[in-house]
This record gives sequence, structure tokens and C-alpha cells, in this order.
Amino acid sequence: MTIFSRIIRGEIPCHRVYEDAHVLAFLDIAPLSPGHTLVIPKEAQATLAELSDESAAAIGRALPRICRAIVRATGCEAYNVLQNNGAAAHQAVPHVHFHIIPKMPDDRGLGLVWKPEPLETASGMELAAKIRAAVGGA
Amino acid sequence: MTIFSRIIRGEIPCHRVYEDAHVLAFLDIAPLSPGHTLVIPKEAQATLAELSDESAAAIGRALPRICRAIVRATGCEAYNVLQNNGAAAHQAVPHVHFHIIPKMPDDRGLGLVWKPEPLETASGMELAAKIRAAVGGA
Repeated sequence: MTIFSRIIRGEIPCHRVYEDAHVLAFLDIAPLSPGHTLVIPKEAQATLAELSDESAAAIGRALPRICRAIVRATGCEAYNVLQNNGAAAHQAVPHVHFHIIPKMPDDRGLGLVWKPEPLETASGMELAAKIRAAVGGA
Repeated sequence: MTIFSRIIRGEIPCHRVYEDAHVLAFLDIAPLSPGHTLVIPKEAQATLAELSDESAAAIGRALPRICRAIVRATGCEAYNVLQNNGAAAHQAVPHVHFHIIPKMPDDRGLGLVWKPEPLETASGMELAAKIRAAVGGA
């Protein structure tokens, strides 16, 4: 059991900002900026790929209203939503969580390192066909 | 109208990987790693805070199945899901889009700069109460 399951069960306290039947949201205790919030499903799954349709739809539905509230409460004009899967992708707790991270004028918030490569048409067509086929069987 | 609305209307081609009534997903043409995919609502809104409940729930529901397909097609073991809002948060096209970015063993993928600060209990309680109140009115 992860620390997030214990927070959901009320065994560990949190600074709760939102809750419904499927979703809990609370302040990150090591925020990148004021208002940095975690949005988690009550369903305990390590990665987004493993999450049920019902929990995933509920999180999707909750995100805009929590974003609106964070924008209103913090006055931030920009924000990042980030969800990491796997230790190599910076996931620390193996229970799905979406970070909502206000970006502040003093640059506090999420830093991104962006090193794009061009997509060749032929390899793009091949890869898209492969993913499309896999979605069909997912 | 953004380039994404023109892609949705079929005026500009894309490497499509998934589509339903509310959602379109296609390969990013400047990928951070092979399989880097954009998942967008057909509803044209600039930021997640502005998106309707219906579109947001549909995107939430679609994300896990697209993640599963990307994992299967690319063999990646880790991946990041990122959604940027506002130019200061690295948003380039003002139409909501979720990036799904495989993290590769050679480190291709999303780079993150993480500089947390501790959350003081008193300021956490105050901020959580403020966001909670704003969610209620959202």
C-alpha cells in the first residue's frame, strides 16, 4: 500500500482541496510553487495505462474545475499538468497522480527540458499504424 | 483558428493514432522521443480550465487506452503525460493538448527540472481552504 492509499483512508492527513466518489485532490507537501496540487484516483493503480475507464473519466472531469480553483486562488496565469509513469519518468509514488503546478512570474513552478527531433514521414506513418492497431486491441 | 482545429477538420494531415466523438490523438511532428503523441479535445478551448466537463471526461477516459497502445507499440517502460497552459508554461498552440511522451533508456523523452520547497502547515491550511472554497464556486 502506498502513502496515497493511506491518505485516501484518512490514516495520514492532507491539505484536501477537492473530493468526489472517485477522485481526491490535495496540496503537494513539497510544492514546486504555491498551489501545487496532486489529483489522484481512489482506485489504486501504479500507472495511467492500468487505470479503469471509470476512474480515468472521473479524473478527466475533475481536472478543469480544480485548475479553475487553483487559478482563482493563486492568481497564476499559467500552469502545467503533469502525470509521470515509471521511475525513469520521475514517478516517486506508485499510485497514479496528476500534478497541477502553477507557473509563477518569478519562474517558480515546473522546469521543462525540450529537445525535439524531426519526425520523418515514413517512420511516422509506420509508427502511427502500429499504435492505431494497438489501440484497437487495447 | 489554431492548427489543431484545422487538423480536426481534415484540412491539414496528421499521423492519427486514435479518434472518437470528442477526442483526436496523433503523433507530434517534433517528437521528444519515438511515439510522442498529442491527445486533443475536438472542442476548441485554449486551456484545461476552460474545457467542458464532457470533453474533459472523454479525454480522461481515452488517455489510458492510448497510453497502453503507445507502451505496446514502442516498448517504453516509462512515460510522461504533460499538458501545458499559457505561454509561460510552455504552451505553443492555444488549443488544449495532452502530450504522451515515452521515456527511453537512452534518456530521450521529457526532461524535468524539479526544485521543491517545503510546505508550511499554516500556509498549507490557508491555501487549501482558499482553493476548496474556489472549487465550490467553480
